[in-house]
Amino acid sequence: MKFIIKRDRLIAGIQDVMKAISSRTVIPILTGMKIEAKQHGITLTGSDSDISIESYIPAEEDDMVYVEQIEEGSIVLQAKYFPDIIRKLPENTVEIEVDSNLKVTIRSGKAEFNLNAQDAEEYPHLPKLQTDDSFEMPIDLLKSMIKQTVFAVSTMETRPILTGVNLKLVDKILAFTATDSHRLAKREIPVADANIEFQQIVVPGKSLNELYKILDDTEETVEISVTNNQILFRTKHLNFLSRLLDGNYPETSRLIPEQSKTKIQVKTKELLNTIDRASLLAKEERNNVVRLFTPNDSIIEISSNSPEVGNVVEEIGIQAMEGEELKISFSSKYMIDALKAIEYDEVIIEFTGAMRPFVIHPLNEDSILQLILPVRTF
Amino acid sequence: MKFIIKRDRLIAGIQDVMKAISSRTVIPILTGMKIEAKQHGITLTGSDSDISIESYIPAEEDDMVYVEQIEEGSIVLQAKYFPDIIRKLPENTVEIEVDSNLKVTIRSGKAEFNLNAQDAEEYPHLPKLQTDDSFEMPIDLLKSMIKQTVFAVSTMETRPILTGVNLKLVDKILAFTATDSHRLAKREIPVADANIEFQQIVVPGKSLNELYKILDDTEETVEISVTNNQILFRTKHLNFLSRLLDGNYPETSRLIPEQSKTKIQVKTKELLNTIDRASLLAKEERNNVVRLFTPNDSIIEISSNSPEVGNVVEEIGIQAMEGEELKISFSSKYMIDALKAIEYDEVIIEFTGAMRPFVIHPLNEDSILQLILPVRTF
Repeated sequence: MKFIIKRDRLIAGIQDVMKAISSRTVIPILTGMKIEAKQHGITLTGSDSDISIESYIPAEEDDMVYVEQIEEGSIVLQAKYFPDIIRKLPENTVEIEVDSNLKVTIRSGKAEFNLNAQDAEEYPHLPKLQTDDSFEMPIDLLKSMIKQTVFAVSTMETRPILTGVNLKLVDKILAFTATDSHRLAKREIPVADANIEFQQIVVPGKSLNELYKILDDTEETVEISVTNNQILFRTKHLNFLSRLLDGNYPETSRLIPEQSKTKIQVKTKELLNTIDRASLLAKEERNNVVRLFTPNDSIIEISSNSPEVGNVVEEIGIQAMEGEELKISFSSKYMIDALKAIEYDEVIIEFTGAMRPFVIHPLNEDSILQLILPVRTF
Repeated sequence: MKFIIKRDRLIAGIQDVMKAISSRTVIPILTGMKIEAKQHGITLTGSDSDISIESYIPAEEDDMVYVEQIEEGSIVLQAKYFPDIIRKLPENTVEIEVDSNLKVTIRSGKAEFNLNAQDAEEYPHLPKLQTDDSFEMPIDLLKSMIKQTVFAVSTMETRPILTGVNLKLVDKILAFTATDSHRLAKREIPVADANIEFQQIVVPGKSLNELYKILDDTEETVEISVTNNQILFRTKHLNFLSRLLDGNYPETSRLIPEQSKTKIQVKTKELLNTIDRASLLAKEERNNVVRLFTPNDSIIEISSNSPEVGNVVEEIGIQAMEGEELKISFSSKYMIDALKAIEYDEVIIEFTGAMRPFVIHPLNEDSILQLILPVRTF
């Protein structure tokens, strides 16, 4: 194997696949990065066996030459050293060459590294997914769906299924749902050209967080394919493969109240900042509880009390209110997470009493839903 | 006590004094921040008993009003909550008021915090230093002297005196010296108007690191006063007081070789980057050793070898060389630290053999000196 490659393009590819490489894997060769050279381009692969990422660098694209003098072959290099070496090389052109004894020579300017490598034959074969059963969506919309739901997954291993996000595609509606049983986040979008349906796909939250980081904010699309135990996200230069979680995701639709007793309309940012301030005194306490009170139909009062430290109270004007007066307590952290996930200027919050879950969604937009269980304090 | 203050100015003052406040102090009241209001302005104080910092916010300065409606008094607030509260308040105007029960009310916009506070009488009195025995120097020059020396202090408590920087002021020459017994950093400057002399002042490296962070990069001057066990750095709005280390600082001047057998002149940045690359393979090893070889009088060769990982070799052109051929090994970390501290484009390195300490200083500038002990490998 031999090739000469543009360093900045190689660095970008390395950064992507490094997100799947862990130094703590039980399979030693997975601490390495696989490099495969073909005449049409270079493929980098990293995997921790839960997530596998392939990044492709074409030899030529849009009249630019990225890789030259390619002699085909493949090798596995230690991921602990390789990225730093490439990042710190003196020139933007890098020559990588492998001899018959698995010795890799990396040259750039007057610097020459000789590294011990491993045989690519020993690297596990990634499962190849059928791409017949797939659908496409814009990358920015997928990122938005991840951002609006993944924070609500459980971090506790007591119910492993809740550490993932449930993906459903039924009647050409794609829904992402996440819950840790104290709150729930849900986002739906229509998918026009879907030729598949599924209900019980659960993708680990960790996988979606890594996918979110790796996807560029482009106008391009991502192709999503699903099997029983794997999901593949494919973009122009990237294959992102994740295992799925085993088990049945709980039926969440009956948790969502269908009517409300108190309904307020408020500016998202103003409510977020006020709750953030009120939570400052509650740092210590596990649930970080704040109280919301509706003294009349033009303001709400947010307050918090910590006997040791002191108390805080603040009023905010609201845009509209309907229904009964309300006093309710909830976790400021859950409320802040929910409001940050809603990328709209105004929200509607619908309460059905101080002890029932309440629902937040953007004004005039029901496809995004955040649900929070209150805390008993009043 | 009561006053109304501009929030951004208060935040800047809080940030400064927070550098002295530790949550792990043995004196509980030192986890707090003292606030003292006088008609002319507000003084904030933080201390961990090693370092004490006072930040002064004048009521008026340069025709700007920063503090209004001052009622004199003082109080101690929990530093764990106070800074975040001020930082997150909704408006740029903050009212702070203390009642007779040590309850502090903080108001801004519609937000109101009520905090439990402590009596300022219980806060330790900071020692007042005589300012007769003092000298002045530009702030940027003091920062440069700290940066060029403090990294070389010892981090080991086995010889506590080496964890500090030795300050000497003799014959109107101020010298900073730091050594961990494997390397030494020294910087001298002339001080025109000094009316004091001292030889055995040793300031903890930690204090100088905090002072470096807190001093703005301004054209202004800092006044330095010294007693047996304290040093005070005073700027327009800041008093920074540090205890001194007890004990005798070792005589370091005889460590510095007076002649050399090999002398090279090289571009600082180029040597730094090459050594940085060569050190990449030596991550694991304690000393991170790299080798330098002078094959002829126009290049040097930097190399490193790690049997497990591989090896690296790189040549760099040098500007000039005098004397004997040389092969020498040294810690890449010490060399990188030394070269980063030298803010000049070219350096002279003077060697007196592979087993003797070598000296680095900027071209045509002997007031900055870095000394490194080699490692026996050849």
